[in-house]
Amino acid sequence: MTAPLRVALLGCGTVGSAVLRLLADQAGDLTARIGRPVEVAGVAVRRPDRHPDVPAELLTTDAHGLVTRPDVDLVVEVIGGTEPARSLLMAAFEAGKSVVSANKALLADEGGELHAAAAKAGVDLYYEAAVAGAIPLLRPLRESLAGDQLRRVVGIVNGTTNYILSRMAETGHGFTEALAEATELGYAEADPTADVDGFDAAAKAAILASLAFHTTVTAADVHREGISAVTSTDVARATEIGCTVKLLAICERVPGNEDGEGDSVAVRVHPAMIPTTHPLAAVGGAFNAVFVEAEAAGQLMFYGQGAGGEPTASAVLGDLVAVARNRVTGTAGPGVTTYAGLPARPIAETPTRYHVSLDVADRPGVLATVAQEFARHGVSIATVRQDGRGDAATLVIVTHSAPDAALSATVSALREMPAVRGVTSILRVEGLS
Amino acid sequence: MTAPLRVALLGCGTVGSAVLRLLADQAGDLTARIGRPVEVAGVAVRRPDRHPDVPAELLTTDAHGLVTRPDVDLVVEVIGGTEPARSLLMAAFEAGKSVVSANKALLADEGGELHAAAAKAGVDLYYEAAVAGAIPLLRPLRESLAGDQLRRVVGIVNGTTNYILSRMAETGHGFTEALAEATELGYAEADPTADVDGFDAAAKAAILASLAFHTTVTAADVHREGISAVTSTDVARATEIGCTVKLLAICERVPGNEDGEGDSVAVRVHPAMIPTTHPLAAVGGAFNAVFVEAEAAGQLMFYGQGAGGEPTASAVLGDLVAVARNRVTGTAGPGVTTYAGLPARPIAETPTRYHVSLDVADRPGVLATVAQEFARHGVSIATVRQDGRGDAATLVIVTHSAPDAALSATVSALREMPAVRGVTSILRVEGLS
Ligand SMILES: NC(=O)c1ccc[n+]([C@@H]2O[C@H](COP(=O)([O-])OP(=O)(O)OC[C@H]3O[C@@H](n4cnc5c(N)ncnc54)[C@H](OP(=O)(O)O)[C@@H]3O)[C@@H](O)[C@H]2O)c1
Ligand SMILES: NC(=O)c1ccc[n+]([C@@H]2O[C@H](COP(=O)([O-])OP(=O)(O)OC[C@H]3O[C@@H](n4cnc5c(N)ncnc54)[C@H](OP(=O)(O)O)[C@@H]3O)[C@@H](O)[C@H]2O)c1
Repeated sequence: MTAPLRVALLGCGTVGSAVLRLLADQAGDLTARIGRPVEVAGVAVRRPDRHPDVPAELLTTDAHGLVTRPDVDLVVEVIGGTEPARSLLMAAFEAGKSVVSANKALLADEGGELHAAAAKAGVDLYYEAAVAGAIPLLRPLRESLAGDQLRRVVGIVNGTTNYILSRMAETGHGFTEALAEATELGYAEADPTADVDGFDAAAKAAILASLAFHTTVTAADVHREGISAVTSTDVARATEIGCTVKLLAICERVPGNEDGEGDSVAVRVHPAMIPTTHPLAAVGGAFNAVFVEAEAAGQLMFYGQGAGGEPTASAVLGDLVAVARNRVTGTAGPGVTTYAGLPARPIAETPTRYHVSLDVADRPGVLATVAQEFARHGVSIATVRQDGRGDAATLVIVTHSAPDAALSATVSALREMPAVRGVTSILRVEGLS
Repeated sequence: MTAPLRVALLGCGTVGSAVLRLLADQAGDLTARIGRPVEVAGVAVRRPDRHPDVPAELLTTDAHGLVTRPDVDLVVEVIGGTEPARSLLMAAFEAGKSVVSANKALLADEGGELHAAAAKAGVDLYYEAAVAGAIPLLRPLRESLAGDQLRRVVGIVNGTTNYILSRMAETGHGFTEALAEATELGYAEADPTADVDGFDAAAKAAILASLAFHTTVTAADVHREGISAVTSTDVARATEIGCTVKLLAICERVPGNEDGEGDSVAVRVHPAMIPTTHPLAAVGGAFNAVFVEAEAAGQLMFYGQGAGGEPTASAVLGDLVAVARNRVTGTAGPGVTTYAGLPARPIAETPTRYHVSLDVADRPGVLATVAQEFARHGVSIATVRQDGRGDAATLVIVTHSAPDAALSATVSALREMPAVRGVTSILRVEGLS
């Protein structure tokens, strides 16, 4: 029982250095919880001279050599990116070693292959830290809700965009100013593309959807729209209808129909208006939250810090304790099942709801013409508000749910209508009953 | 792989009948997730004639016989209460069978003994449904946060009292009226003692504290105050200072001091004012939520339905999938560790904060005398508000944190002061920074 379990740490940046710190601080507790001490066998980095705090004899630039060393029992990958992370994980599995990773990009793209390799080797692949940082989310989906049927998972899973949208609402600023502020304060990276254009959220959505629906979903299956087109007008319009704008990662199981079409999975990332009374609306700044709807459990929400070295390291260490316990008892945890194999539903066929604000000529018949355009595309209107001012009027329309293609076709047609002087805001709406 | 796993269902009331329903509805999914089909071997009840929906050949009144039958692999206990539930669990363990239970009272009182028996037999004892119904909470505490150090767990874990307090705030009614309404609407049981006097919440607090602090905590270690003494004045005062009244289950790790006193665990259930900006303040009606503070993970919150047949059955089935998977792979999940063995801290020595509203004579020197009384007990005042009206004044004081004994001694002394005409509201305050 007393021989230590030896861990290879791959990467020692924001997350890796916090993992090292926690491993040292909590050594006694970890030993008691696992049944054996945990020891760091080595730390692979790119530039060893940048790591004066790590004992020199632990540092190596040969990550591959470290992973395959016979004295290494477990591997923690916090390098990020696809390569060399992917090859390192495959090498670890081939060598019979379980892996804990925080790498959302890798898991979203290659999750299927990696899970298969881990299962073949009879070892674990855990990655709680990859989605929503410190928030226990993947384990609840994989295990706690394993006896239930999930309907929807809707999350705010990117802190940078949530911070930017929160600031736009607070200050009335546009996207460009809010992004500049976020960059200055360190909430956005120098190259904010991955966050702002929704790539980060899309990777997380793919991971969540795979687990929730027992189906392989990759980032390529996710419809993705970022927040750079969100305007201060969108944010103001949202406020007017009792909503707030959030970048949402939405994973849904869309029920089949009587024509024999089966269930499918719709996964998308886009900004949307949600009612301020929705539990996700209050999630401000850099926090993350994920809302889950299950057949029997009903509505659940998970809330916490989505990033940062220490919170992310907490999730990594929770997984490390799990894979270490499994190693001690000579087993592997439950693998990921993909038996459902549901098809991905294209965004065009996914039911959504729209908010549309129009500047129109204020004369008889305009509302009727506009309403006809919606009807012509099979879109039914939930609420409409018309505010006249002189010869012009503002028309604010919220639709019922319809296939997204019908909604975007309606909007395109409206843009061509002579009576419509401008479409001032279009955003999808979520969470209205 | 195809021989079914056979489950003994003990109890078929609100929760048990929902478990049966879900087992039937999700049979295909459960088989895919577990790797083997799950079959109901028998259903033990008290009054078989009350269960026309259950196939007669499954019903039995001999729960003990069912548990020990050789064709039973797993046991689900949803009878409740201490006996015969306790003996049935012990018999299951002795027969080498894993158990899923929803029985908070039993786990809070006899958790230590039951865990020991399960560990000795090498089988599982899971009970996610026992605390906060459908909300995945125990598994996150036991596993996801296993690499972190927990500081506090604060929860709204009783829907009945939360409904009553929510209604008192909405209507201005007193406790008695709000309880009557809750009873009429089915939110409170005919005998509401377990809920209203905090016994239910105290059992849950004991379970949460045990897992959070790796220490055996029983219901007897929990300081317990119910909500029957909460007045409409308390609720109104709370509103005035930007707070709301909630029945909280609070589990804290109190750090030791320089004199060599080690860490201890303080567990308590009592009504308290919390700021309306606190994430728990918005948890209304019959919902539950639990707020967790950990060293590295920071603040987390879990929210969802705390009771009801279907939500509770969802948690039971999640556990059932876990113990079934372990059975298939021939292992047991991680046991509960109690290595920390921290002492329980009495409420008198637990640091708390108070809100105190006084009716005082409005004359010079009264505030000074009152303030002196706090100082004499070593209690420092955070905020004070005095509202004069004629010859009387209202004094609203919120203290800093001090040992609870010092605070209650202060209040007793104030009651005796000639200048104090009455103490109109005293409640502890939580969640202020
Ligand atoms: N930061 C967060 O808040 C957060 C939250 C959730 C998940 N994650 C995920 O956690 C992972 C790590 O993120 P991070 O923020 O810690 O990244 P980071 O600060 O950029 O650190 C990356 C580390 O990997 C090392 N590295 C890079 N290429 C390498 C190679 N070829 N071989 C060996 N080591 C190499 C770097 O070495 P040098 O130090 O020598 O350059 C550095 O130590 C990513 O997958 C990220 O998505 C991060
Ligand atoms: N209800 C909830 O929302 C909820 C939420 C979380 C946890 N729980 C927990 O779940 C458990 C069950 O709660 P419940 O609401 O389902 O209770 P319930 O509706 O009162 O059902 C109890 C069941 O146990 C059976 N039973 C009682 N004594 C028995 C005995 N000696 N032998 C065999 N069967 C016996 C009863 O049989 P008859 O039907 O023949 O009388 C009944 O079917 C309790 O531990 C409770 O604390 C409940």
